[in-house]
Amino acid sequence: MAEISANRARTIIRKTLAKGKEMGLKPLSVVVLDSGGHVKAFEREDGAAPGRFAIAHGKAYGAVMLGMPGSAQMARAEKQHYFMTAVNGVYGGQVVPVPGGILVLDKRGNTIGAVGVTGDTSDNDLEAGMVGIEAAGLSGQG
Amino acid sequence: MAEISANRARTIIRKTLAKGKEMGLKPLSVVVLDSGGHVKAFEREDGAAPGRFAIAHGKAYGAVMLGMPGSAQMARAEKQHYFMTAVNGVYGGQVVPVPGGILVLDKRGNTIGAVGVTGDTSDNDLEAGMVGIEAAGLSGQG
Amino acid sequence: MAEISANRARTIIRKTLAKGKEMGLKPLSVVVLDSGGHVKAFEREDGAAPGRFAIAHGKAYGAVMLGMPGSAQMARAEKQHYFMTAVNGVYGGQVVPVPGGILVLDKRGNTIGAVGVTGDTSDNDLEAGMVGIEAAGLSGQG
Amino acid sequence: MAEISANRARTIIRKTLAKGKEMGLKPLSVVVLDSGGHVKAFEREDGAAPGRFAIAHGKAYGAVMLGMPGSAQMARAEKQHYFMTAVNGVYGGQVVPVPGGILVLDKRGNTIGAVGVTGDTSDNDLEAGMVGIEAAGLSGQG
Repeated sequence: MAEISANRARTIIRKTLAKGKEMGLKPLSVVVLDSGGHVKAFEREDGAAPGRFAIAHGKAYGAVMLGMPGSAQMARAEKQHYFMTAVNGVYGGQVVPVPGGILVLDKRGNTIGAVGVTGDTSDNDLEAGMVGIEAAGLSGQG
Repeated sequence: MAEISANRARTIIRKTLAKGKEMGLKPLSVVVLDSGGHVKAFEREDGAAPGRFAIAHGKAYGAVMLGMPGSAQMARAEKQHYFMTAVNGVYGGQVVPVPGGILVLDKRGNTIGAVGVTGDTSDNDLEAGMVGIEAAGLSGQG
Repeated sequence: MAEISANRARTIIRKTLAKGKEMGLKPLSVVVLDSGGHVKAFEREDGAAPGRFAIAHGKAYGAVMLGMPGSAQMARAEKQHYFMTAVNGVYGGQVVPVPGGILVLDKRGNTIGAVGVTGDTSDNDLEAGMVGIEAAGLSGQG
Repeated sequence: MAEISANRARTIIRKTLAKGKEMGLKPLSVVVLDSGGHVKAFEREDGAAPGRFAIAHGKAYGAVMLGMPGSAQMARAEKQHYFMTAVNGVYGGQVVPVPGGILVLDKRGNTIGAVGVTGDTSDNDLEAGMVGIEAAGLSGQG
């Protein structure tokens, strides 16, 4: 199956940040992971806190590793928090179960990676990320 | 942007401990981190438990990495505890989300580091730390 | 002191990859860290192995945390390998002591971050990265 | 047995840094650990690299945990490097086996803690630290 190319990853990030600016959000940070959960591209806007890479990565990593977007992870956490806490442990701390972790699908519906957005509220992070993914001609599941 | 100098870090610690003594607090431990979250200075008062460095560090580290003072982290933990638990995981256990983790700002409002105070109640830790930061000519966000 | 802006980080990466293409190198991966060692931007070229983020990060992270570019770390490893091995341990495995980890300096000679390049031979990684840094109007110490 | 008091720790650090300035060394970082290996005090001079706390800590921690000063650890590493590498692993990466990790002894010869100095060459780090320890009325074993 096709992976997210460097060009598309760059577009996803650029368009996500542009949407964030249009929405007047706080500085965002956006990561793109491939289908194996490995970092493909990342950008942290000026003014964002230094630790934002880790949060963006945690949102996207949990999504791709579990096959569950951030909203679904949050719903699970609300019902059974010790499970999501255990999942965080199982993945070496690298899972942040809130909106902004978005699965990326190709035209056939295959998961080809994930995007993690952080910096504003989770819902705003998610909204900006969905626009970025769609601008790259792909579908997102947030 | 300027970092917290060794002189200022020493003043922050000295004045925080002095305030603690004036308030009759238990022995305090105070850490100063730079804007990247790296340890600049630390002191553990005689009689404090041996593990207090880690608690002070955790309070300050979470603050600077997230750009959120301890009180804000605690408010988030009260509303969505699994999120702060995940954040602790993402940062290798180095996040303690309660008052006493104080962002340090320069005159222009830029975050130039963080202070972590521990040893008494969180509220008292925070009060002593704010005095120490202001005595060094800086502003604190607790 | 000023940090590497998102614009400059993007330029560093773009120009490093362009140099790599001009030199006919294997697909490169380039990370930009700020002065505290935190990830600012990253890109992995199509065709690069999935684990290249960690190598690029390790080259840059060791450089900024120690204040020693990759070539200097390698010289130290050649003379006293158990020291660099211990340093890798102290930083949680995040240190890769070979050329390609480049300190980034501003006009005044202050270290404002680091770049990590990986994908081809270390010497070629370093050469491409130096071009990228200079194209962004900054100086590199490799 | 008596521990290193906060006053003495402060003196050790102050006098070590003063000696470093007198010797014209690069900016130093000095940590004082108690007999259990827990951080008592620390200071990083302006201009030192951000990761120096970890190096200073690693030097002192290995010393107190093994009961072996840095020079002895280095001698062991030279003869059997895989042993010291294993020891680094056993202590979670927190052992740096070179001069500058100094055991602190009281008048009766009991080990009451350790000092870790880093920033210049290991031998210079050690020399400055020994002066700091003696200035506090204690003995050092480097």
